[in-house]
Amino acid sequence: MRRHTMEVRVIYADTDAMRITYHANYLKWFEMGRTEYLRELGFAYKDMEDEAMLMLPLTSSGMTYKKPAVYDDVLEIVTFIEKLGGASIRFGYEVYRKETGELLVTGHTAHGVTNTKLKPVRLKRELPELYQVLVESAAE
Amino acid sequence: MRRHTMEVRVIYADTDAMRITYHANYLKWFEMGRTEYLRELGFAYKDMEDEAMLMLPLTSSGMTYKKPAVYDDVLEIVTFIEKLGGASIRFGYEVYRKETGELLVTGHTAHGVTNTKLKPVRLKRELPELYQVLVESAAE
Amino acid sequence: MRRHTMEVRVIYADTDAMRITYHANYLKWFEMGRTEYLRELGFAYKDMEDEAMLMLPLTSSGMTYKKPAVYDDVLEIVTFIEKLGGASIRFGYEVYRKETGELLVTGHTAHGVTNTKLKPVRLKRELPELYQVLVESAAE
Amino acid sequence: MRRHTMEVRVIYADTDAMRITYHANYLKWFEMGRTEYLRELGFAYKDMEDEAMLMLPLTSSGMTYKKPAVYDDVLEIVTFIEKLGGASIRFGYEVYRKETGELLVTGHTAHGVTNTKLKPVRLKRELPELYQVLVESAAE
Repeated sequence: MRRHTMEVRVIYADTDAMRITYHANYLKWFEMGRTEYLRELGFAYKDMEDEAMLMLPLTSSGMTYKKPAVYDDVLEIVTFIEKLGGASIRFGYEVYRKETGELLVTGHTAHGVTNTKLKPVRLKRELPELYQVLVESAAE
Repeated sequence: MRRHTMEVRVIYADTDAMRITYHANYLKWFEMGRTEYLRELGFAYKDMEDEAMLMLPLTSSGMTYKKPAVYDDVLEIVTFIEKLGGASIRFGYEVYRKETGELLVTGHTAHGVTNTKLKPVRLKRELPELYQVLVESAAE
Repeated sequence: MRRHTMEVRVIYADTDAMRITYHANYLKWFEMGRTEYLRELGFAYKDMEDEAMLMLPLTSSGMTYKKPAVYDDVLEIVTFIEKLGGASIRFGYEVYRKETGELLVTGHTAHGVTNTKLKPVRLKRELPELYQVLVESAAE
Repeated sequence: MRRHTMEVRVIYADTDAMRITYHANYLKWFEMGRTEYLRELGFAYKDMEDEAMLMLPLTSSGMTYKKPAVYDDVLEIVTFIEKLGGASIRFGYEVYRKETGELLVTGHTAHGVTNTKLKPVRLKRELPELYQVLVESAAE
């Protein structure tokens, strides 16, 4: 399974008065992770929308918070494909504190694969090149 | 089961370039919902922290996105207690578009019940008054 | 000068690890304030865009931070029209802590008045009804 | 004058239903810019707080929006010291679209220099090493 890692640093905007990272902000970093993951595979999400008229609307998300990230922590956001369906894709995520290697948060986002009118798109048939790359990335 | 309903209106800050509400923002409205739910029960979260030295750190969250909320929609955020454990509490949420009554998003947040040093607190033994109110609210 | 007041309550999402409201969040409340101000005048911003094809893109903003707002504070967001130009409008804002009446933040946002292609629109000539209401609100 | 440049990429979370970057988000990138600027000078803000008991609370901010940043744009955030006072510092910022070199946004944030009890700290007398570095960075 191919894993993509990127780093972000926690700023004050990300934290709250509990002095930890506010729990909703991980979803923003998950977005960064999957966008860069797809870009690395050769499929910039922006081009998918503009050229292939393809969208990946969210259908669900979830997170488990194990340990808090604090101000100025460097986080490693790891993204991978958990499951590839006929017209759906599920990404998994792990967030580590870089300095200590501790696993802080795990999560997922599930997406439909649709055209810009939100009609399901069968990747295998309609975008076989992308489908093949995703299959290989999920399995690797 | 006691249900608390509050209204919020979607502003530009809540939306994204897909022209819908960005998925992370529901977690913010869930926070509003459970805070007002507890306040209605007579337990302002601020006082719980300041006086009872009690915290409700998140352990997990999840959301299912059924339909998108768009700019200027008035949303009804419904909050309820899904499950009350010995030293844990799980809130459930439903988000409706007020104008049409459509259910847009469902979700949950699970919390530990701890002291300010993050040690678990047995509500039934240590804060029987709050425990009793929560039990009744969950069961009603 | 007509002044519109609305209340918001500071949640954890609004705060940061300094234990105060993160400074960028006031801009979000300014957006709420001017949206409700215009709605009160009979011009919902959504309809202005959808029907009158009118937009109010930001050209500048500024804030002065006098005192911090903290978790669970109820804030009064006061909005007014500072200046009405031929194809521009400048809103002023004041943020008070409701409980104490202290002035916490002052600010402004300046906007062009344009069509949906961002071409300036002369309000007085093209939307005299709205222009008249704005003039009266600014002067009152 | 020493200038620090860093890059960020606009994600959906940063945009709004106007299909441009929501105006408040530049303040978040300004925070990133000045944090990395100070780190490059050898003064991590986190250490300033934890060790030197120094804080830089915001007293004002302002932005001028010239052109919008859109989804997936790579932005260059340029940070510099506009003015260094006895117990105050003012940072300036410029935001460019990397691909085209266009200047999109200019701004500033003004900060007091205080101890953790928010009492003003005379940098020149109390932290001469930091003061000297800032003077040279402002003047360079």
